[in-house]
Amino acid sequence: MTATSGRGPYAKSAEVRRRILEACVDAFGETGFYGATMKDVAKRAGISHTGLLHHFARKEELLIAVLELRDERSARFLESADAIDPADHPVDALRGMLAVVVDNELRPGIMELHCVLSGEATSPGHPAHTYFAERYRSVRRFYTTAYTALAKRGELSSPVDPETLATMTIALINGLQAQWLFDRESVKMESAIRAFLTSLVPALAR
Amino acid sequence: MTATSGRGPYAKSAEVRRRILEACVDAFGETGFYGATMKDVAKRAGISHTGLLHHFARKEELLIAVLELRDERSARFLESADAIDPADHPVDALRGMLAVVVDNELRPGIMELHCVLSGEATSPGHPAHTYFAERYRSVRRFYTTAYTALAKRGELSSPVDPETLATMTIALINGLQAQWLFDRESVKMESAIRAFLTSLVPALAR
Repeated sequence: MTATSGRGPYAKSAEVRRRILEACVDAFGETGFYGATMKDVAKRAGISHTGLLHHFARKEELLIAVLELRDERSARFLESADAIDPADHPVDALRGMLAVVVDNELRPGIMELHCVLSGEATSPGHPAHTYFAERYRSVRRFYTTAYTALAKRGELSSPVDPETLATMTIALINGLQAQWLFDRESVKMESAIRAFLTSLVPALAR
Repeated sequence: MTATSGRGPYAKSAEVRRRILEACVDAFGETGFYGATMKDVAKRAGISHTGLLHHFARKEELLIAVLELRDERSARFLESADAIDPADHPVDALRGMLAVVVDNELRPGIMELHCVLSGEATSPGHPAHTYFAERYRSVRRFYTTAYTALAKRGELSSPVDPETLATMTIALINGLQAQWLFDRESVKMESAIRAFLTSLVPALAR
């Protein structure tokens, strides 16, 4: 029996926890980690301040839980893509990543959360600074592996080294998401990312 | 006689104002608009809370002044580049923009300010949301004009339309700046931007 399908106090507690995290995505996505208050989160979740403190004693704990929730959701979506090794199947791995980005467009709340928190966290003192630094490194490794494999097969149509291309790919995706949040009419995220990737890897167009 | 070269109460007031704005760049760059408090800004500027309120009655006024300061600095640096019309001299205009980006690397404080504030401001309720939306639009116009002019001359080596390329260029630059703030060793901003621009406009390499 899982927490979500069960009944009784444990299931109730899991439900409250879920509501708190949803409230947190909204609060952090609107005013960032520093701007959001525990009081505000409690109010949005429809529980008392004391009730919130029972689940999460400090705002830092909420931040960690929200980032984990976000990773979990990406992982769930990536389930099939994640199983694709970028060294063995680079084209499929890139297709999988593109699908995740396209899916994100349907969840602007999560994208806003990412933009606000990753922006705030550029400052070295932010509690999520290390989290984002590590996340960037790991995604860079993913793309570097895929581009290196493609270069070996003669399927990479760029004179730029795979690591720089990896950095550029992530920059482009993040930058497009930020711009899109300011202007959802003018900014065509998917076609821009697709144009960039297919210019590097013509096999992606097929 | 200008405010900075003069003496007397006006010069003193301008000096205090300058100190407040420097304190604000640091405070907003660290904890964002929402996280920074007027008390914190006063402390960093070495003045009393009342003294700060005399110059800026509300935090929103400080935000506007800091964004204006940032624009002023970019404009000063761009002075020559700004005079370059992207329709008439697209290659030189792109070179000018590249120089600004390279110069930014020497001012990580300003970049941090931009990343933190533009991240926070993706949320529609943020007091700088409209400012950044308008700024993105205006920079998109600049690049779109330059790429359109290059396409007409047959100097644009990409099948992608100029407006999408403009959006991509801005996304890439912003995304690289954010990544660089997390990992200054691994992320090579200048070479990545140069690689992207010369792949589109081979004339830039000459």
